[in-house]
Amino acid sequence: MTHFLDEILNPKSVAFLGASNNIITMGTGQCYTLKSRFTGKIFPIHPSEKRILGLPVYRKLEDLPEIPDLLIIVLPTRLVTEYLEAAGKLGIPYAIIVSAGFGEVGDVDSQEKLNEIANEYNMRFIGPNCIGVINTHSCHGILNCTWFPFELPSGQTGNISLLSQSGSWISQILIWAERRGIRIGKSISVGNEANTSITECLDFFRQDDQTEVIGMYLEGIKSEGRKFVETLQATAKDKPVVVSYHGGTTAGARAGMSHTASLGGNPSIYETIFKQSGVIQAANMEELFEFTHAFSLAHPPKGNRIGLVTNSGGPAVTLADLCEKEGLRVVSFSNDLQSQLKEIIPTVASANNPIDLTFDMNFTLFYEDVPKLIWHSGEVDALVFYGIFGSSMLERSVRYNHGEFKDLFPLEGMNFLVKETLDRFFEWVHTNKIPVLISCIDTADNLIPILQENRIPVFKWPGMTVKAMKALVEYYSR
Amino acid sequence: MTHFLDEILNPKSVAFLGASNNIITMGTGQCYTLKSRFTGKIFPIHPSEKRILGLPVYRKLEDLPEIPDLLIIVLPTRLVTEYLEAAGKLGIPYAIIVSAGFGEVGDVDSQEKLNEIANEYNMRFIGPNCIGVINTHSCHGILNCTWFPFELPSGQTGNISLLSQSGSWISQILIWAERRGIRIGKSISVGNEANTSITECLDFFRQDDQTEVIGMYLEGIKSEGRKFVETLQATAKDKPVVVSYHGGTTAGARAGMSHTASLGGNPSIYETIFKQSGVIQAANMEELFEFTHAFSLAHPPKGNRIGLVTNSGGPAVTLADLCEKEGLRVVSFSNDLQSQLKEIIPTVASANNPIDLTFDMNFTLFYEDVPKLIWHSGEVDALVFYGIFGSSMLERSVRYNHGEFKDLFPLEGMNFLVKETLDRFFEWVHTNKIPVLISCIDTADNLIPILQENRIPVFKWPGMTVKAMKALVEYYSR
Repeated sequence: MTHFLDEILNPKSVAFLGASNNIITMGTGQCYTLKSRFTGKIFPIHPSEKRILGLPVYRKLEDLPEIPDLLIIVLPTRLVTEYLEAAGKLGIPYAIIVSAGFGEVGDVDSQEKLNEIANEYNMRFIGPNCIGVINTHSCHGILNCTWFPFELPSGQTGNISLLSQSGSWISQILIWAERRGIRIGKSISVGNEANTSITECLDFFRQDDQTEVIGMYLEGIKSEGRKFVETLQATAKDKPVVVSYHGGTTAGARAGMSHTASLGGNPSIYETIFKQSGVIQAANMEELFEFTHAFSLAHPPKGNRIGLVTNSGGPAVTLADLCEKEGLRVVSFSNDLQSQLKEIIPTVASANNPIDLTFDMNFTLFYEDVPKLIWHSGEVDALVFYGIFGSSMLERSVRYNHGEFKDLFPLEGMNFLVKETLDRFFEWVHTNKIPVLISCIDTADNLIPILQENRIPVFKWPGMTVKAMKALVEYYSR
Repeated sequence: MTHFLDEILNPKSVAFLGASNNIITMGTGQCYTLKSRFTGKIFPIHPSEKRILGLPVYRKLEDLPEIPDLLIIVLPTRLVTEYLEAAGKLGIPYAIIVSAGFGEVGDVDSQEKLNEIANEYNMRFIGPNCIGVINTHSCHGILNCTWFPFELPSGQTGNISLLSQSGSWISQILIWAERRGIRIGKSISVGNEANTSITECLDFFRQDDQTEVIGMYLEGIKSEGRKFVETLQATAKDKPVVVSYHGGTTAGARAGMSHTASLGGNPSIYETIFKQSGVIQAANMEELFEFTHAFSLAHPPKGNRIGLVTNSGGPAVTLADLCEKEGLRVVSFSNDLQSQLKEIIPTVASANNPIDLTFDMNFTLFYEDVPKLIWHSGEVDALVFYGIFGSSMLERSVRYNHGEFKDLFPLEGMNFLVKETLDRFFEWVHTNKIPVLISCIDTADNLIPILQENRIPVFKWPGMTVKAMKALVEYYSR
């Protein structure tokens, strides 16, 4: 049997209440984004407009040429119940209520009324006070009814599903996530959870084959605490669940109450629940997204022994130090392995872990010879690299110098050589299922997208790289 | 009397040993960067080349038309002593020895020999095994002898000075720092500290009027521990010193030994030293740079009561929760202040701290009316905003939708309106010396550079924003 959320995320036709030709309003913006990538039918409803965003307009729901699979409501609060009732009468099975002004401002009665209508007409809805859903795997293009545009880089599929009690945290981040290479596949903003709980959404993502990693932003559990914990445990057994919880402090709870009517609980209770459920805890939103990024691409490490390969000394020290502070072991290599390494690395480089190849632009040493020796020695469980070798830095040097001496720079040849080496690196990593993370401060390096498209996660700072590795090690060594 | 480091950072003429016409070598790259912004004289020395990077070449130091103020050495290890001695004989007063292969690979004798030469000829040098120095305040353009280009955005001056036992951590970050708006003024990579210690550099930055904030990357103190601590205490009394220490763990110390011959010590001893000295501790490199950014721009908070103004609910909850977790107080506003706020904010917004104005694009409410009411109530010591209001998001929406309906977007008018409001905001903040930090996930927002040029620090994630505010509060409430 199909989960009802699977149906909400895969409509063939959508009726939209709240779009107009005033582009500055939220509803119009959301319809605009939806229209841009959704290939199913969109029916805007409006009392006076003739066309909205180029689409023919219907006066009221009853005028629609067919019963749509989904209704999206971004109307002023006072109109919501009336339209939901009309939709129920018509037999529209699902709704997403974006409109705010219910439980979160204290109007519990109106919120209960929405639920009564849904029950009467056998409807299910998400919200109110949410920002909608995203499904890049939709059967009709991309379903994205948030205000923010999003698409995956071509040829990629998103295996991360996001679940959030904040609309902002799953929509404002979209453009950043796209640039960052974070493979979001589906997102649900649950809002006030009047009719659909975060527990139900979690259970849906547990069952969903397209979801391989779950990221969750939580302000507090509203009801059915035991069921939430059970679902969390069952889900975390099947796939990684990364959670960022914000609602435990006085100010956090106060803010949560007026945000989605969530009253956050004692942080230590939540922490215990997460720990016992095998959930990965993220201290903040950045960690939430960076950790899901790591889980969405990296192979599982079998232990905590880390091999470090860098192209500079400071990052080598920093990575080694941070690893040990996080409980990861930067093991000292055996004499045998050190002797083998000494034969291939430059004399100024260190043959012990971390291997710092210094300013030596030998791509095959960095991406092939050294990591192969280290990995196949069996002395480490995962590899962390610092540095890449794209030509962006050189290109910028040339631009900075007004193109002077640009003939001296072998930029094209360089890219070609690195790319050839990288292709062999990808094959080696994925054939051997080697857990690899890369740290690189130069986020404009032109090889980053190539690395990430080939399922090698790249992070900016050593701090986050090490934290992500720790999350991987902890989850897979449960 | 001028500090000798002030003279090293302000040469009128530089002799360069180690540049050639092979642009892929480090030395050539460093000379290339130097040449691009340094307006003093550069004399490349080379046994066979006729011209290097367009500059006339001299066969040996003795052929130079004048005694240069500074000598930069990027030669193979075995040649360094010979050239340093020749420079000493000639009377060149200062050198920067970039060449590696001394103490950090165990050759203590050769390193000691460098020192003997310097003492004999009354020279001072930085290094060996360093990456050089940067001085954007140089009397002749920008002095940057690292491999990486750098310049401040036009019209800005850098009040941050960096001091580092890693060359990478002050040079690889330059392009990022430029984009990030981090106002680096001077940097010294100390390398193995054979002749010039990190303590001397710190003391120089303490005395230097152009240095208002100091950032330091530390792997370990090599000698004169007491003097270092005294200098640190004296410096932190005068100006904020942010330190990131990496060398205390077994792996960190092992890596440090082979990096700059630093043997890191017990982290808890360092932590105690930092705490007692009133130094701001950064857990990692990202914090080091983000904290210096905050100190370089923000006004000092007088206490830990934070007022939060946001344009969305999730970030409001997250910021409030993280503030309280870090010991900052998101105070509940008085009834009086709440009543005044209620009169001006939308009905769905919360009138208590944090103020979430929701998806309401009223710039004057956000940047003027609300913060003025909160600040002048005297109920908070600092303000944190989430969200900006540049038109970048709208512009991207239009691009994403292939420019469809672009006439509907009032982009130009919008930018103009926000900019007018912002100008009044800047004046208000700086006249009243209000500590303000802004968090904004959309790092491509076109108003970020405008904010930062007007001395309002902007951070991406709430996590870092809150940590930076904590650092400010702790430092200024000593």
